Amino acid sequence: MSTKEIDFSSINAIRLLSADAIEKAKSGHPGLPMGGAPMAFVLWNRVMNHNPHNPQWPNRDRFVLSAGHGSMLIYSLLHLTGYASPTLDDIKQFRQWESKTPGHPENTVTPGVEVTTGPLGQGLANAVGLACAERHMAARFNKNDMEIVNHYTFCLVGDGCLMEGISSEAASLAGHLGLGKLIVMYDDNKVTIDGSTKLAFTEDVTKRFEAFNWQVLEVKDGNTDLDGIEAALREAKATTDKPTLIRIHTTIGFGAPNKQGTSGVHGSPLGSDELAAARKAMGWELGPFEIPEDVLAHMRTPVAKGAKAEAEWEALLEKYGKAYPEDQNVFKQLLKGELPVDWAKSLPTYTPADKAMASRSLSHATLNAIAPSLPGLFGGSADLAPSNLTLVKTSGDFQKGAYENSNFRFGVREHAMGAISNGIALYGAGLIPYCATFLVFADYMRNPIRMAALSNAGVIFVFTHDSVAVGEDGPTHQPVEHVASLRLIPNLNVIRPADGNEVSGAYKVAVESRNCPTALALTRQNLPQLENSSIDAVAKGAYVIQDCEGTPDMILIGTGSEVHLCVDAAKELAKDGIAVRAVSMPCWELFEAQSDAYKESVLPAAVTKRLAVEAGTPFGWARYTGTESAVVGINSFGHCGPGDVVLKEFGFTTENVISKAKAVLGK
Amino acid sequence: MSTKEIDFSSINAIRLLSADAIEKAKSGHPGLPMGGAPMAFVLWNRVMNHNPHNPQWPNRDRFVLSAGHGSMLIYSLLHLTGYASPTLDDIKQFRQWESKTPGHPENTVTPGVEVTTGPLGQGLANAVGLACAERHMAARFNKNDMEIVNHYTFCLVGDGCLMEGISSEAASLAGHLGLGKLIVMYDDNKVTIDGSTKLAFTEDVTKRFEAFNWQVLEVKDGNTDLDGIEAALREAKATTDKPTLIRIHTTIGFGAPNKQGTSGVHGSPLGSDELAAARKAMGWELGPFEIPEDVLAHMRTPVAKGAKAEAEWEALLEKYGKAYPEDQNVFKQLLKGELPVDWAKSLPTYTPADKAMASRSLSHATLNAIAPSLPGLFGGSADLAPSNLTLVKTSGDFQKGAYENSNFRFGVREHAMGAISNGIALYGAGLIPYCATFLVFADYMRNPIRMAALSNAGVIFVFTHDSVAVGEDGPTHQPVEHVASLRLIPNLNVIRPADGNEVSGAYKVAVESRNCPTALALTRQNLPQLENSSIDAVAKGAYVIQDCEGTPDMILIGTGSEVHLCVDAAKELAKDGIAVRAVSMPCWELFEAQSDAYKESVLPAAVTKRLAVEAGTPFGWARYTGTESAVVGINSFGHCGPGDVVLKEFGFTTENVISKAKAVLGK
Repeated sequence: MSTKEIDFSSINAIRLLSADAIEKAKSGHPGLPMGGAPMAFVLWNRVMNHNPHNPQWPNRDRFVLSAGHGSMLIYSLLHLTGYASPTLDDIKQFRQWESKTPGHPENTVTPGVEVTTGPLGQGLANAVGLACAERHMAARFNKNDMEIVNHYTFCLVGDGCLMEGISSEAASLAGHLGLGKLIVMYDDNKVTIDGSTKLAFTEDVTKRFEAFNWQVLEVKDGNTDLDGIEAALREAKATTDKPTLIRIHTTIGFGAPNKQGTSGVHGSPLGSDELAAARKAMGWELGPFEIPEDVLAHMRTPVAKGAKAEAEWEALLEKYGKAYPEDQNVFKQLLKGELPVDWAKSLPTYTPADKAMASRSLSHATLNAIAPSLPGLFGGSADLAPSNLTLVKTSGDFQKGAYENSNFRFGVREHAMGAISNGIALYGAGLIPYCATFLVFADYMRNPIRMAALSNAGVIFVFTHDSVAVGEDGPTHQPVEHVASLRLIPNLNVIRPADGNEVSGAYKVAVESRNCPTALALTRQNLPQLENSSIDAVAKGAYVIQDCEGTPDMILIGTGSEVHLCVDAAKELAKDGIAVRAVSMPCWELFEAQSDAYKESVLPAAVTKRLAVEAGTPFGWARYTGTESAVVGINSFGHCGPGDVVLKEFGFTTENVISKAKAVLGK
Repeated sequence: MSTKEIDFSSINAIRLLSADAIEKAKSGHPGLPMGGAPMAFVLWNRVMNHNPHNPQWPNRDRFVLSAGHGSMLIYSLLHLTGYASPTLDDIKQFRQWESKTPGHPENTVTPGVEVTTGPLGQGLANAVGLACAERHMAARFNKNDMEIVNHYTFCLVGDGCLMEGISSEAASLAGHLGLGKLIVMYDDNKVTIDGSTKLAFTEDVTKRFEAFNWQVLEVKDGNTDLDGIEAALREAKATTDKPTLIRIHTTIGFGAPNKQGTSGVHGSPLGSDELAAARKAMGWELGPFEIPEDVLAHMRTPVAKGAKAEAEWEALLEKYGKAYPEDQNVFKQLLKGELPVDWAKSLPTYTPADKAMASRSLSHATLNAIAPSLPGLFGGSADLAPSNLTLVKTSGDFQKGAYENSNFRFGVREHAMGAISNGIALYGAGLIPYCATFLVFADYMRNPIRMAALSNAGVIFVFTHDSVAVGEDGPTHQPVEHVASLRLIPNLNVIRPADGNEVSGAYKVAVESRNCPTALALTRQNLPQLENSSIDAVAKGAYVIQDCEGTPDMILIGTGSEVHLCVDAAKELAKDGIAVRAVSMPCWELFEAQSDAYKESVLPAAVTKRLAVEAGTPFGWARYTGTESAVVGINSFGHCGPGDVVLKEFGFTTENVISKAKAVLGK
């Protein structure tokens, strides 16, 4: 076969392997893998720098399939270009229980999948995060003569990704930052689930991305013009001052003679007749899951190329180590994901003599205290830096031309901020991303928080202004249901610290949780430093912060800004001869992970009289109190007013806690 | 004074009244009201068609302050142009507990405030919804000679709104739909909370909106060029085929001589010195909260103009009624927000003999059954119409040139979809908006759902694919925490119906809830029609669907797709001599609203042995079961696999329910 013939046979192999797997699964999305096969082949075979025998090679180009429903495309590419996984057997298990080839790509399941995608637009923002991480590491570690970080981030998006608002947020920021090594291929096929894009998507995408300061290139025939695709990719690589969108016009489901170009091929198997017709039209004589040897050989040229590239990089890194041993040490430590020994010694500690401070201010102090010890710390706020208090004073802003800096200015773009942070976490270079907004706007970034938890991304979500104590901004800005709503997400630690020591403890947990995200809920208002608060106890989720003599008559459980009310109430009740234990419970998830013995030691089952105090919804507290009526909480939206007035009106006073505690005791 | 002088005095009155109120409150955002005063004055005084003496006049122009933090601007405008509320005393109570002038504008608190704003970008999408409602009503009711619906929707946005992704979603759709009567003023002041827009927002906004098919006009000096502002507004009004963005360059906090143009004036009171300096610079001799009589007279010219306009409209409507009495009847009924008598008779009913159906299919049948009886029904899906099953067969698509149709194609834009639906609900013309996506993507539109609840917008949120039974699409598409997360939101009814009758009952509640949104959780998979299910019982939130002889030994509580498991398990357990009651609990919120007697009749306190069965997180169920361990639920993310396999692996089988029930009974 000629090179051209073997190229097209390879592309047809991607198409048919994908369609075969979907047919066998009786479920899946053939439209994208078939229509996008040419661009994917050119990228993976001719352009992308990767080593199939080591999916973790640090200097590999990254590839993100933002249109995650086309997952069979990436599984076909991984298999055909020579990755050890997925095997052909894995592919035959597409979309089955516990297979290596789930319905949407999951980084925790399939090596070579960089990030988990599926929710549209997330992948594009993840790719922006990966590209930011590359620029940041390059600016910090590259030397004039030795570029040890030097790769591209490629992303494939569809119409759906680009309709999502997160795509505009992420693209606007990528253009602002001039991420020249970010290259996005837009599979422009004019078809969505509902039908033609004429139904709802008639904007000028080229002009929109140019408005975002992107280079936009176009490939008019993405079905057959392989050289055109390659030329565009190479032009994109050569453009170093801005990201590139390559608009590649394709036919969805190309190769399925009767269904291509229709929405019917988007999300359903072709059916055996159409699959047979596709084979016939391609002149393909082999059966399902059969790949010609010459195609496999052609597809697997990246194996040798990748091994050579990695070896050259290893040699460069060795040379680098000789010239810059200290830098190499830090670089290698980061790549291993190791935290510096003793970093936690930099955490601030407090005594009751220290002044009352808002936990957002304590967070600020903590970030600034630990930053010098943590070379991976990298983050910022969605245009609320003066409110969230997230600026690290020893660094400048991460900007075009100043990528070495670690203060990230996300703009008012919470949704992209979350997904970009996920990309930074999953870049795999020991970066510890944190990102911040008001707690109420966690709602704007809820899917990225979920995706962080699902994909084991150790992002630190810093949420300030964590209750109705926000005050005058009113109910649109007062979180009520938000702490509980975050507790609902699996694999996410939600920590609401009560004072300075607990803030330090919260950061200790968050920094050490590299495979699990953390959400911090921090106050706008000042909080006293408590007598028995503890950095280390935060890791246990809950602990006795004020105990009584003998067996408690009841237990008061508080979190965050309400713990001091519990402590004060316990002391007052003691004067009436009532033995009350006060428990600080900064993190439910960590408490649940403790031994039964520890849990019993904090919350003895025999002490059934309990009252929880939290400036949020009582929903869920029955887990610890037995009933939601034993909660000083908030069952409605908040109200506008000065913060102290609002707290008082909703009953967050020592007096009311005492009164409700007595009611629980029947007194 | 000359007209020009009195114009500028009026503008200074807006600035100072706003700054005075913020100063008194010691909290608020003077930057926008001061910088945006000229454009606001020109709009409200010269251009906008409104009647201060009747904020509810149906044909008024709508105004949305998307940058809701500038709330004092709208309060100043309402007061100064002659609205009865807020009074000067109300304004002196700015941001205080239970005042009429909360920190962000709330439509439920202040007449003349069309929608609740604050979370950035929501207002712009609300405005798109208002403009859609206007086009829809106009297309349905206007006659060639009589345009009884004929007004504009104005919106004021800042940099923050435009950075948010929702602004791109909403603007792209508005451009697609050619909403020529939507006019957005962009207060382009180059300053955000973090500082200069150079930090994170350097895109070409003009080009971006042109890419969205908008007309973009520019006013270079928005501080003083009133005629330029007016000319742009009039040009925008004259352009009928596309929406207009007027980019008005201003100085934030204009009039505060030392602070204007800085981020310091964005969100903090000016301080008494700077406020005095502003008065001096303006040559303003009156004290705080004092408005010159001639300024008031000038500002209140809309009162006479508005009264005349409304009277003319009333005359037109009367003439219309004579020519088109039936249309007028429907129109007036809609404006009153009245549902047609007997509409609920169109709800489908089912018996156990009817075939098993997915609740999304039952929803489809219901929508199509009730649509002919409900002239206000108006909605659609975010590009998942074939999956959400939301198309009404008797109508076409709401599109440019076909605004009379009621099937809305939102595109893959969940966030904007929610906020647009809120705008349609709050338009005040009896429209009943519904909007649909997969339940897992409720996360993309969580803030609009919250805002619907906060602003009493009776939107119906249709969420299909409501559990891990989604199957092969895997954990990115399988909701686990989502039903619980929606239950957390105050003033939102979350209904998870078990079969056909309960779907009808769910729609009955949803349609009748015009001041409270409803979220429906519907299955992808088929469900059997149950023997004792009931349309009317849904309104009670929970009811006995399968009872036992005598006092129950235990109660099984199920929702949605798990109710039939409870019924079957109860029957099986009866064979072992165990008396089990099965309760269907489609809606927690409605059950909580019932009398204690009713609640006791369904869930007798004496029967403490209980087991809840729901294919989602157990979080919160302790409210009804006493402990979360008495729940057949899911404590992790889902997994990819065929839906029936996934359900079985997670324990959603009759056998497992029986086994867990026995465990609860200690058997």
